[in-house]
Amino acid sequence: MNVAHTVGIIGGGQLARMMYQASIGLDLNIALLAEGPDVSAARVVHDVTVGDYTEAQVVKDFAATVDALTFDHEHVPTRLLEELEVTGLAVRPGSGALVYAQDKALMRAKLGGELGLPSPRWRICPDAEALRAFGNETGWPIIAKESRGGYDGHGVWRIDGPDDCGEPFQESLEVSAGERVEIIGEEFVDFTRELSVIVARTPEGECVSYPVSETVQEHGICVETTTPAPGIGPDRQDEIQRLGRDIASALGVVGLLAVELMERRDGEVVINELAMRPHNTGHWSIDGAVTSQFENHLRAVSGLPLGDPTARQPWCTMRNVLGGRPDLTAGIAHVGRDGGLKVHFYGKTMRPGRKVGHVTSYGSDLADVQARARSAAAYLMNE
Amino acid sequence: MNVAHTVGIIGGGQLARMMYQASIGLDLNIALLAEGPDVSAARVVHDVTVGDYTEAQVVKDFAATVDALTFDHEHVPTRLLEELEVTGLAVRPGSGALVYAQDKALMRAKLGGELGLPSPRWRICPDAEALRAFGNETGWPIIAKESRGGYDGHGVWRIDGPDDCGEPFQESLEVSAGERVEIIGEEFVDFTRELSVIVARTPEGECVSYPVSETVQEHGICVETTTPAPGIGPDRQDEIQRLGRDIASALGVVGLLAVELMERRDGEVVINELAMRPHNTGHWSIDGAVTSQFENHLRAVSGLPLGDPTARQPWCTMRNVLGGRPDLTAGIAHVGRDGGLKVHFYGKTMRPGRKVGHVTSYGSDLADVQARARSAAAYLMNE
Repeated sequence: MNVAHTVGIIGGGQLARMMYQASIGLDLNIALLAEGPDVSAARVVHDVTVGDYTEAQVVKDFAATVDALTFDHEHVPTRLLEELEVTGLAVRPGSGALVYAQDKALMRAKLGGELGLPSPRWRICPDAEALRAFGNETGWPIIAKESRGGYDGHGVWRIDGPDDCGEPFQESLEVSAGERVEIIGEEFVDFTRELSVIVARTPEGECVSYPVSETVQEHGICVETTTPAPGIGPDRQDEIQRLGRDIASALGVVGLLAVELMERRDGEVVINELAMRPHNTGHWSIDGAVTSQFENHLRAVSGLPLGDPTARQPWCTMRNVLGGRPDLTAGIAHVGRDGGLKVHFYGKTMRPGRKVGHVTSYGSDLADVQARARSAAAYLMNE
Repeated sequence: MNVAHTVGIIGGGQLARMMYQASIGLDLNIALLAEGPDVSAARVVHDVTVGDYTEAQVVKDFAATVDALTFDHEHVPTRLLEELEVTGLAVRPGSGALVYAQDKALMRAKLGGELGLPSPRWRICPDAEALRAFGNETGWPIIAKESRGGYDGHGVWRIDGPDDCGEPFQESLEVSAGERVEIIGEEFVDFTRELSVIVARTPEGECVSYPVSETVQEHGICVETTTPAPGIGPDRQDEIQRLGRDIASALGVVGLLAVELMERRDGEVVINELAMRPHNTGHWSIDGAVTSQFENHLRAVSGLPLGDPTARQPWCTMRNVLGGRPDLTAGIAHVGRDGGLKVHFYGKTMRPGRKVGHVTSYGSDLADVQARARSAAAYLMNE
């Protein structure tokens, strides 16, 4: 087994920061290509290069110093990654897999069309008229999405009727990851809640699933997860975990794959989105699983065998800290009365609504676990 | 409550490295004064100063950049720390406490003499003749120790009879932490096993105890711990935990205090040594406790409330990796078949017998937990 001793991470956000924390015990060398010297991960990583990940020469020079390359985000141009792969570099996930996390149209065509996995009806709509036609066929409301570059609720619209179909086309669509952004119309799935399953997969195809999480979104941003998803039976849990592994295998993912799902009233799930990196809905695993998603991502990316993804306790709730007190660390002095509460701050300057940290609680009483995480996050957010 | 946002750590060993890992989620800024650019912690910390901690100006310049100062080891000269304290800097632990971890003669006089805590008989012996007289009074064998600077079995001798009393005086005694080293004679305690208790104490005097660990030493080096110590009853556990808190309080420790103990046949314990920093016998807590010793040390040092020190599972065994395979990380590929085994490598160049990492296993079956940790460490050590 070839082990990549130096792993390059492109992107200096909190995901890279938490990957770095996980890398220390594995004695992997981490090289970071960061957007600036003061971004979240750049504040803690030893070996930081500041540069623009959309510039081919910057990425190539950085890649020349590492054994394997992975990502904090999906925004590196696909064609640039392909160029690196031609040189023999271990890009993980590879461009052939990552493109399905970068491009929602390709993802829908592959998972729903080719593989027949549970997906909403969808169509690429070049203009408002096409979107209107899609809505009239499917029934209102519908969802409109940018095919690339959206995150945390940006680039997603709920379209209630024919008169609103111009909205996604008001701003000129940008280019993302080197490709044109298109508008996709999607069937509105009347889901009761959102779920997430995260799997890790090695270059050899070894694959493990984390327990399924219930996720709570507000304004398109994940605010809370509970793991395992309350009320989910073992058969449905197995089925969703298998779905995650099947997608990872079909797409050839190396590293983590997060599958966001919508759960219908009858318990059936529909695929919502994919991410191929550590994911907000897996942050609970730092404190709540035997092996965190960050460690397993690095294990997979560097060619090490995977760690056990199982939960260490009956319930675990993660709550995001979105904006809040200017001095979060001092805030621990107050939430610190709950000595079992785990805090994770990202070293980011405070802005209203910005993800600046998360808190995790765990235990055997679900109501208590959720209340502790919510109360601490509310305090830190100055609510 | 005043929170120290920038904590300076003097010494770049694995304890500083693991403190750094714990600092990331708390968003504390860590500044490291390291012996060289490639020592264990210097390889991962973002903000590293390379310099000699025995040079007053180096330490003063470094201290001027931090809100609180703490240590990876006990070797900074006491008088230098006193000079820093006069300037108002938060030195944690303070020189008035640290001196009892630096100087075993002062420690024995304070704990055994003044406080009447369980200690062996002891005496400062200026020469072989004095050591011989001590042994004749106490009964053979006896233990001889350097008062300062010893570690991992260095500076400790078992003296079997009058003829061996010259041994500790063969080499000229060095100066350590700016003070003269003396030879102490100590009663030989016929212990059945060694125990350790670690407590964390804040500047305000809040104090928590970790569960008592059984520790196994070979050639004076800790090779294994099991937590809680097997066969220890709740009353004895409480008593030893209270002993740890009492010592921390009596000495005014801020940060961690580790108390190494010898357990006699009747279950009574005798104080062996003190350390005022994260300790090898507390490494299990990274994976095995709600809050690791490293996080609680930083919480105490920076003025934050303490986290819960309780164990998360019935049994946890830590095994040191002493020397071994040149490529430890690749070694995970083999021990990785146990996905629940936690590995912690220190980024140190390999030398026979050197502490280069540790492994931790946990679970509900003591024999299984110990066997898994031993088997993995043996593999990594190429045994």
